Amino acid sequence: MTVDEMRAILDRDAELIENEEFDKLMNVYTDDAIMVLPRQIIQGKKALKEAYMRVAQYFDHTLKLRHGNMKILETEDTILVLDQTFVESDKINEERRATYVYRKINGEWLCAIDNSYGTTLLDE
Amino acid sequence: MTVDEMRAILDRDAELIENEEFDKLMNVYTDDAIMVLPRQIIQGKKALKEAYMRVAQYFDHTLKLRHGNMKILETEDTILVLDQTFVESDKINEERRATYVYRKINGEWLCAIDNSYGTTLLDE
Repeated sequence: MTVDEMRAILDRDAELIENEEFDKLMNVYTDDAIMVLPRQIIQGKKALKEAYMRVAQYFDHTLKLRHGNMKILETEDTILVLDQTFVESDKINEERRATYVYRKINGEWLCAIDNSYGTTLLDE
Repeated sequence: MTVDEMRAILDRDAELIENEEFDKLMNVYTDDAIMVLPRQIIQGKKALKEAYMRVAQYFDHTLKLRHGNMKILETEDTILVLDQTFVESDKINEERRATYVYRKINGEWLCAIDNSYGTTLLDE
């Protein structure tokens, strides 16, 4: 996996989020994937999809993600992505340093841990 | 897995590092584990052990790790640990915000990605 290949994965996911294609978006996650939201951790595709729908509504359907600097730390079946993630909407414009864990399942890289807040969770 | 259980794992590993028991230390890593060192990524137990020996020598055998605030983000077989890691020695005293990925292999949690530098790698 190159950084450009990972960038293509994250850009594709960002497009699905922007277009609110949440059923398709669920295909990029493992079955027991978790996502960190403010003060809560969401687990599983059903809960993730519902969370994405709530988030889209909260941001008045203007949410966009963009990715800047990116590093990947890769083993045979596990990747830690360090990523400068820009969260843009009518309500917020934030730059985050995200940590995403990908797992290779049946030859395909899927997101297992989606933590856009990175190590800032240690401040809580 | 609770945070206290993960803390016990990391404290045990810190003790092995302090006592330079690197053969035992290798048992806590997956076979293809990677570790981030300044300007290089080390992979595999043989290379990791050699790297630990170089690091121990570089720090005049005074290296100690301590762990502070810790968060774990856990799926069935994968954990992302966010950890305030204190690196202490005669040469440096640093506080880092580390990102460690653990994988459950045959019922045991092993370190697959050892990145004490966390998202600061994005500054490079």
